[in-house]
Amino acid sequence: MNAAPDRYALTHELQSLYADYCACIDERRYSDWPDFFTEDCVYKVIPRENHDRGLPLATLAFESRAMLKDRVVAITQTLFHAPYYQRHIVSAVRITGVDDEVVKAEANYLIVRTKQNEPSEVFNAGRYIDVLVREQGGWRFKERCCVFDSELIPNSIIYPI
Amino acid sequence: MNAAPDRYALTHELQSLYADYCACIDERRYSDWPDFFTEDCVYKVIPRENHDRGLPLATLAFESRAMLKDRVVAITQTLFHAPYYQRHIVSAVRITGVDDEVVKAEANYLIVRTKQNEPSEVFNAGRYIDVLVREQGGWRFKERCCVFDSELIPNSIIYPI
Amino acid sequence: MNAAPDRYALTHELQSLYADYCACIDERRYSDWPDFFTEDCVYKVIPRENHDRGLPLATLAFESRAMLKDRVVAITQTLFHAPYYQRHIVSAVRITGVDDEVVKAEANYLIVRTKQNEPSEVFNAGRYIDVLVREQGGWRFKERCCVFDSELIPNSIIYPI
Repeated sequence: MNAAPDRYALTHELQSLYADYCACIDERRYSDWPDFFTEDCVYKVIPRENHDRGLPLATLAFESRAMLKDRVVAITQTLFHAPYYQRHIVSAVRITGVDDEVVKAEANYLIVRTKQNEPSEVFNAGRYIDVLVREQGGWRFKERCCVFDSELIPNSIIYPI
Repeated sequence: MNAAPDRYALTHELQSLYADYCACIDERRYSDWPDFFTEDCVYKVIPRENHDRGLPLATLAFESRAMLKDRVVAITQTLFHAPYYQRHIVSAVRITGVDDEVVKAEANYLIVRTKQNEPSEVFNAGRYIDVLVREQGGWRFKERCCVFDSELIPNSIIYPI
Repeated sequence: MNAAPDRYALTHELQSLYADYCACIDERRYSDWPDFFTEDCVYKVIPRENHDRGLPLATLAFESRAMLKDRVVAITQTLFHAPYYQRHIVSAVRITGVDDEVVKAEANYLIVRTKQNEPSEVFNAGRYIDVLVREQGGWRFKERCCVFDSELIPNSIIYPI
């Protein structure tokens, strides 16, 4: 088998992973969300302006799967917020690096938000910048950096991006 | 051939089908739309709130290709409505079940609507929940359930989702 | 190798190309943008109404890679405009024709725009209608026609679609 079919297979696998990730969040199965990450992962949500200038300030930053689990408890039990639906639309995955067991990939995303008794609206648009590793059970995010374009968020970001 | 390449091929075929379906509607070739369905199909458009609670009330529900053809007549000849353009953006297809000749699949969708002399806007976002069978001429929808997030639709849904 | 796997490979290659094209624009690497086109290319941005009626009037029309390079100079140095971020979300590529070395393909696109201190918004939605040829270095656009639905653009189109 030459390199190209391998690349097709990898693209296919990542596209599936990304779709499963979105479905998990959009269907509000938040307790499954940390399982998409490695144990010592990084998950960040950062404004594009900061990311482009190399400024480290992130809206959200977690540094382990355990912290993601804490976040899920906050979302589902602690944080006071008006609930809303999310709907992820993700463009084709771009593989930007393959090195032994580590894959770098990116994809544009758009999240449409729907609050109760309001029309659906553009909530958050940006780019996933990811580092993935293959573990028992499939591909996992070692890093997922969600770089969002909007400096002005219509409301605070409660659920995972 | 092992299972994985088969899965790639299937994903590829469904992705093509979904894109063709969207193109058919977005290009207003409505008379071709019923051909995407089996003769004894189900096509439903249902609010997420009802779907999630198991409530059967749907905004639209048709139970055969003949009913879809009736709908096309209504859209193109009977229903009084201000015309609008639709533009479908569909995320990666997720295959959720493969069983003999029947495939279950899902995909997130966003429809951008453009009315005359108005800017484009988010119209309807949600999830296709589909059951597909392979017939003479390719894959067809045995069921297409369009579960939309917005309880508040900016206007009545005229064209297919 | 039979026809179907070839079609998968081609779809995969075009999907990658389209994603790279979007990334180039969204990341503001405008000087790389003309390299996606052949030397004697056509790049057009045209309202759907005109396209559907066969009217030739386009919002933008360029007829060579040299003209695209001129456009890049205009964008980056000459045109007076308030800067904005673009984020492309592109649906699955539809291959509509394969003839020797020439491929015809289409895809639905949505561009989300973010202006400084404003929320992200739907900017431009439509369909790419493309003619592609394989050259040294990969696939290039011989023609890219961006047919957009909105007659009413929230502001002038500055950056590539």
